[in-house]
Amino acid sequence: MPHVILLGTLDTKLEEFRYLYDRLSLAASQSTKTPLKITLIDCGREPATDDRISITHEDLVAQHGDGTALTDLSRGDVIKYMTQCVKRCVSDLVKNENVHGILSAGGSGGSSLASAVMREAAPIGMPKLLVSTVASGDTSPLVGETDITMMYSVVDIAGSNQLLRNILNNAAAAMVGMANAYESLLQEEAQNADRTRMRVGVTMFGVTTPGVDKIRRHLEERHGAEVFVFHATGHGGRAMERLVQDQKLDAVIDLTTTEICDHLMGGNMSAGPERLEAALKAGIPNLISVGATDMVNFGPKVSVPSHYSDRQLLEHNPTVTLMRTTPEEAKKIAHFITNKIKTCAKDPSKVQVWLPKGGVSMIAVPGGPFADSTADEALFQALKDGLKGSGVEIVEDERDINDAGFAVDVAERLVELIRSLEHTTYNVGSV
Amino acid sequence: MPHVILLGTLDTKLEEFRYLYDRLSLAASQSTKTPLKITLIDCGREPATDDRISITHEDLVAQHGDGTALTDLSRGDVIKYMTQCVKRCVSDLVKNENVHGILSAGGSGGSSLASAVMREAAPIGMPKLLVSTVASGDTSPLVGETDITMMYSVVDIAGSNQLLRNILNNAAAAMVGMANAYESLLQEEAQNADRTRMRVGVTMFGVTTPGVDKIRRHLEERHGAEVFVFHATGHGGRAMERLVQDQKLDAVIDLTTTEICDHLMGGNMSAGPERLEAALKAGIPNLISVGATDMVNFGPKVSVPSHYSDRQLLEHNPTVTLMRTTPEEAKKIAHFITNKIKTCAKDPSKVQVWLPKGGVSMIAVPGGPFADSTADEALFQALKDGLKGSGVEIVEDERDINDAGFAVDVAERLVELIRSLEHTTYNVGSV
Repeated sequence: MPHVILLGTLDTKLEEFRYLYDRLSLAASQSTKTPLKITLIDCGREPATDDRISITHEDLVAQHGDGTALTDLSRGDVIKYMTQCVKRCVSDLVKNENVHGILSAGGSGGSSLASAVMREAAPIGMPKLLVSTVASGDTSPLVGETDITMMYSVVDIAGSNQLLRNILNNAAAAMVGMANAYESLLQEEAQNADRTRMRVGVTMFGVTTPGVDKIRRHLEERHGAEVFVFHATGHGGRAMERLVQDQKLDAVIDLTTTEICDHLMGGNMSAGPERLEAALKAGIPNLISVGATDMVNFGPKVSVPSHYSDRQLLEHNPTVTLMRTTPEEAKKIAHFITNKIKTCAKDPSKVQVWLPKGGVSMIAVPGGPFADSTADEALFQALKDGLKGSGVEIVEDERDINDAGFAVDVAERLVELIRSLEHTTYNVGSV
Repeated sequence: MPHVILLGTLDTKLEEFRYLYDRLSLAASQSTKTPLKITLIDCGREPATDDRISITHEDLVAQHGDGTALTDLSRGDVIKYMTQCVKRCVSDLVKNENVHGILSAGGSGGSSLASAVMREAAPIGMPKLLVSTVASGDTSPLVGETDITMMYSVVDIAGSNQLLRNILNNAAAAMVGMANAYESLLQEEAQNADRTRMRVGVTMFGVTTPGVDKIRRHLEERHGAEVFVFHATGHGGRAMERLVQDQKLDAVIDLTTTEICDHLMGGNMSAGPERLEAALKAGIPNLISVGATDMVNFGPKVSVPSHYSDRQLLEHNPTVTLMRTTPEEAKKIAHFITNKIKTCAKDPSKVQVWLPKGGVSMIAVPGGPFADSTADEALFQALKDGLKGSGVEIVEDERDINDAGFAVDVAERLVELIRSLEHTTYNVGSV
């Protein structure tokens, strides 16, 4: 039986969530699946009353709060507190019951609560749909690295009108469809539990795309691997590390570590200070390279911080400005990498660092706008110095990061590392 | 029979769209509805070959192109050209056949093509779902004022892996669910074609919310109206005007015209130069006020253009900075409004301009941070001067825009205007 959680801020939107609930039931009645189970959680600032509520506000706070009296909190703090309660509640539901989807609807406040719960209490892959007044704009604070689906409500989510009913009706039906399909997929996966295809994550950027494409095709065609390619936009690095933590990836080719530059230098594609840690801590085969570490990403040129105004800036397009990293910054990047490896690597023999000395990106090759052999040399030397005695192999290669031969060698060395695993069960032979 | 259009850039993503197509069919087989009709359009830069294709690349270009040879165009121009062809093709399908949803998936290029088609060739309300690598970020160029639903792909949409299959599977199932529900909704609507509830659009901003809430409740509770509230974020104004053009609204209370400030002064919530035109041209009952014209919206304070650095700026929060409009700017705003009224009003007797002299926003009342009687007076005087001889009634009211009595009077005057329509069929009596 498919099971959907409905997160409702019922103190202000009871009518709208009653409608969503009833349309979920209606859509489910048109499916061949067994009846839908709906868990409606009352997530508002104050309790509401309705027969449809599965987990009341009182129970939510009593079972998942820390005993703080809501009346002691400011309006903003009540929302934060409720968000924590709902996260714990949904985490428990996901852990202890089969859950096949989470649905909510709200303005900016409700979207913030619901998306935090969806991001942190549910796995990637489980359907998550949020109807929101703020979905036509910057959704990254809401979606982050996850697969939350955002439906713009067009009108305010208040009262009832033809358009709002139409949109909420679409949302309810989408959720029923997804929950049914997700339940079926989980059953399919359980039946195919003797999985033998290795799952490899690879990080990519526009300027490393030819190399990554070659790696992907080589691993797929020659070794029957499943390759997951992540755009190194900040979200991509985080998503890959999250999947490693969830044991959804068996090995990693972290070819494009440019997010480290943005973290250190204040660019807009940082994946945070924990980048690189997940795969190192997991001890899975892990090839790290320095793709696109020649650049820090900013938005429109006017948005580049003023202390960088005298730097080499490349306007990629009106909304993307790239800054060439300096030798000093290259050393910081190298230090970040070597420090993570030395402090986090569970098994250094599974880690390799690859240095494409012919150029770390498509535009850092000789003659390219970001060609800078001094910065590159500083990067490579600092990496070599920093990894002395670490037990991690460094592979120096004269080719550039997009060279097809380099890509094949990277892929083959990863396969070797995987084959060297004790009790390997992956089919990594030629296919 | 539900009918879904699948927009596929098949030259680069044939495998992925074959999977989507097959999962659409599978999801449909688990529904109680009659079989799903899928129209797969080959939208890539070059033709692809597959049995599933309904409208081939050749047919698309032959029937919807202007005769230009694709080989004469640059790579970028091919995409623009194909976008135009697909728009015309989908417009024809929507006009001549029943269509219940549009689905696509792509990277930044594919998302741009598919979203342009969804925005411009399909009505608001029809399910539109786009799986995209760029959905966790600024979606406004893609979604605009429409209800396009964005699903972040987490991984690159290339090849096949567990996660990508999971996400595409969710998307296909969501689309089948929505298409079924939308078909049912259209049938319900057709049966209820003797609609008598008037549909009123109202524009709102945070600083006019109390007034709009009061108007909405009054119209709903006293007059049985369906009230559509639009956030004046740029998208909201455009959405309201689009619904007026589509004859989905019978009357408008354009209480919050702040988007005009952003259009004229370069703020980030402009609804474009055609704001106000749709309702005036339609000749429907139309009450215009000047809500939140005390402010121009910008992002973080550092993003305010330097030529405004000496102006009165209010940091609403870290991502929103408001600039108080000056008397000179107030005159420009008034000129924009009076000019639109004089050039576009089909029936001036249906238009009224309301001046809340006690304050045009929550923060422009006496003692508020944006209180400025000189600017307000300049605005009101320029409106009165500009509308002399126009036949449009101006209502001067000493109360502020959020005053409950003001809200009720605005609502009642709209109802009077509606009642004065010849052959009115709306039930606007007390309920």
